[in-house]
Amino acid sequence: MALDRSTLTLAVDVMGGDNGPQAVIDGCRLALDDGLQSKLVLVGQESAIAEARSRTSLPDDRVSVIHAEGVVAMDDKPAKALRRAKDSSMWAAIDQVKEGAANGIVSCGNTGALMAIARMRLKMIEGVDRPAASALWPSMSGKAVVLDVGANVDVTADQLVQFAIMGEAFFRAMTEKEKPRVGLLNIGEEDLKGNALIKHAAKVLREADPEMDFIGFVEGNDISSGEVDVVVTDGFTGNIALKTAEGTARLLGGWVKEALTANLMSKMGAALMMPSLKKLKDRMDPASVNGAPLLGLNGLVVKSHGGSEPEGIASALELAEELAAHPFLDQIKETIADVADRAVELPTDDEETASAAAAE
Amino acid sequence: MALDRSTLTLAVDVMGGDNGPQAVIDGCRLALDDGLQSKLVLVGQESAIAEARSRTSLPDDRVSVIHAEGVVAMDDKPAKALRRAKDSSMWAAIDQVKEGAANGIVSCGNTGALMAIARMRLKMIEGVDRPAASALWPSMSGKAVVLDVGANVDVTADQLVQFAIMGEAFFRAMTEKEKPRVGLLNIGEEDLKGNALIKHAAKVLREADPEMDFIGFVEGNDISSGEVDVVVTDGFTGNIALKTAEGTARLLGGWVKEALTANLMSKMGAALMMPSLKKLKDRMDPASVNGAPLLGLNGLVVKSHGGSEPEGIASALELAEELAAHPFLDQIKETIADVADRAVELPTDDEETASAAAAE
Repeated sequence: MALDRSTLTLAVDVMGGDNGPQAVIDGCRLALDDGLQSKLVLVGQESAIAEARSRTSLPDDRVSVIHAEGVVAMDDKPAKALRRAKDSSMWAAIDQVKEGAANGIVSCGNTGALMAIARMRLKMIEGVDRPAASALWPSMSGKAVVLDVGANVDVTADQLVQFAIMGEAFFRAMTEKEKPRVGLLNIGEEDLKGNALIKHAAKVLREADPEMDFIGFVEGNDISSGEVDVVVTDGFTGNIALKTAEGTARLLGGWVKEALTANLMSKMGAALMMPSLKKLKDRMDPASVNGAPLLGLNGLVVKSHGGSEPEGIASALELAEELAAHPFLDQIKETIADVADRAVELPTDDEETASAAAAE
Repeated sequence: MALDRSTLTLAVDVMGGDNGPQAVIDGCRLALDDGLQSKLVLVGQESAIAEARSRTSLPDDRVSVIHAEGVVAMDDKPAKALRRAKDSSMWAAIDQVKEGAANGIVSCGNTGALMAIARMRLKMIEGVDRPAASALWPSMSGKAVVLDVGANVDVTADQLVQFAIMGEAFFRAMTEKEKPRVGLLNIGEEDLKGNALIKHAAKVLREADPEMDFIGFVEGNDISSGEVDVVVTDGFTGNIALKTAEGTARLLGGWVKEALTANLMSKMGAALMMPSLKKLKDRMDPASVNGAPLLGLNGLVVKSHGGSEPEGIASALELAEELAAHPFLDQIKETIADVADRAVELPTDDEETASAAAAE
C-alpha cells in the first residue's frame, strides 16, 4: 500500500521559522543522514540557500533549488500574506504541491499564513470547512492523532465532527488499523456548563458516522494512555495540551539527567547503559514529535514549530515522507464523501440545540 | 512565620473517593510514616474506619474519630448533596474546620459537592465569587501554582482576575517570594478569536493590581519552565492541561523503566544507581503532586483526586499540613481587600468591550 519513498519529492520552505535558513538546511542534512529517501526541492532566496549549503553540504542528486525572493514574516496577518506573498518561498513551495511537482511541503513559517495560502492554492477537500492542524502524539499504544492543535481556536460542533472523520481516516491510512478508536477531549465532570458544544458534537458524530468506533469523551491523560487513537478538540485546548505535554517532557528530561549525574555511582551506572540512555533522550525530546500535518487540504502540508531546531525540522521531513508514502488524502476524501452520502437529516429540535450551544 | 506543625489538626473525609476508606486510612499511615506532625480527625462511618484500622494501624494519640453515617456519592449533583448530605462525612469534616476544631480538611470525594458544601459552611472570602481549584505544579524553579484546574469551567474576566490575585497571594504566603510572577494561559498566536476574554482579563488585571508582577500571556510549556510562578486559566483548560501533564509523566515514566531494563548492561547500570532511581520514580509519579487547595473559601480545603491511591492521599495530607502552617488565608484576604480599595472605575468604553467579549 505504501509508495516507494525514493520516488517521492518534498518541497521545503527554507525561509520560514525563527531560526532561519541554516536551521532548515541543517535539518535536511540530519534527515538525509537518518535515511530520508525523498528528493528535496529547497524553496527560498538562492543566495541564502547557497550560503547555508556552504556550511552544511547537501548532495546535488537529492536536492534542487527554486528561487523565491519574498519571505512571509512570522507576524504577518494571514490576510496580508494572501495579498502580498505571491513571490514568497511559502507560496512557491505550496505551488510545487499544487502542480504535482512535489508530494508534500514542509514549512516552519507563520502558521496562519501557511493555512491561508495552502487553502487558497490547494483548496479544501470537499465537505471540509477548514484545515485542522494535527499532532502525532506518542502513546502507550504507539501513537495517537490529536486535532486540532492550534489552527482553529473557535469551532462549531460540525467542525469537531469533521476533525473526527479526518483524524480517523488519517489514522487508518497510516496504520492500517481497521477501526481506530475516536474520542472527544473533555473533563471528567459530567454536567458542567461549557461542554454543551462537545456534547452536541458527540451526538452528531454518532448519528453521522455509526461505523466509527467513537468511544465518547476522553480526558487529558487518555491522550497518551493507549486507550484512544484519535483525540478531537478545539485548537485552543489542543494547543495548550500539546505545549503542556512538551513542557512536561522537558522538565522530566531534566530530572532524569539529574538522577543520572547525582553522584559517582549514578554516573558509573549511566556509563554502563549509554545506548539505552541515548535512545531514551531522543524519545523524550519534544523535537522528535515535531511536525503537524494540516488535514483537510487537498494536498500534504506539514507545519513545523516556528522555533524548530534542525532536529525538529528533520522530524518534520521524516513525517512528511511517511505521510506522502501513504494514501491518507484519498482515505480522507472517501470517508468524508461516504459520511455525506449517509447523512441523516437532523430533526428541528437538534438544530435548536446546536444554535443554543453555539450561542453559549 | 510558619506555625509549629505539631499544633495542627487535619480533618479527613474517610468515606470520599473511588477506593474507599482503606485507601484513605493507608494514606494516613503513609503520611505519618513520612513525618506528618498534625493530629488527624477521621470522619466517617465508625465501623468502616475501625475495619480499615484493623488492617492498617494508626496511633491513638495522633488520630481521633468522628462518626458520620452518610456518604456523598461520587456522582451526586452538588444541589442534591447540599440538600441531603447534612449527615455525611464530607459535611462533618468541613464543619470541623468551620468550628475551628481543625485547621483544614482533606477529601477525595465528589468535587462539586465538596465545593458546594464548603462554600455554604465556610463561606467565601469577601470579594471572591467562587472557589478556585489550584494545583501545585513542579517546575524548573520549584513549583508553580495553576488555577483553576476544574472547579470553574466557564469564567468571566473578573473571575480570572480574582484567580490571579488569590494565586499570587497564595504563592507569596507559601514561599515568601516578594513578587511572584503571574501569567495568563494562552496560545502563541496573537490575533485569533476566542481569547477576547483573556485579553480583557489581562487589561483589567493590570489596572486592578499594578503592584502585581503580571508578565502577560504564557503558553502551556511555560507552566513548568520556571519562568512563571502563578498561571491563571479557566477550569476546563486547566483540567485538560493538568491531566495531560499527568498522562505525559506516566508515559515517560514507562519509557525510563524500559530504558533501565532494556538489556543486561542497562539492568546492571540501574542497580548501581538505585537510590537516584527511587528518588526519580517518586518525583515522576503524578501521585506526588496530588492535592488541590480550593482557594477563595474562608477555610483550608484540599481536594484529592477521586481515584487517589494511598500515596496520593498521603501527598494531599502533607500538602494540607504545609498550607495550614502558613498564613495563606490571611494573605489572600488582605490582598483581595487591598485590590478592592484601589479599584479604579473602568470607563464606559471598556465596559462595552467587556460586553462584546462576553457575547463573543
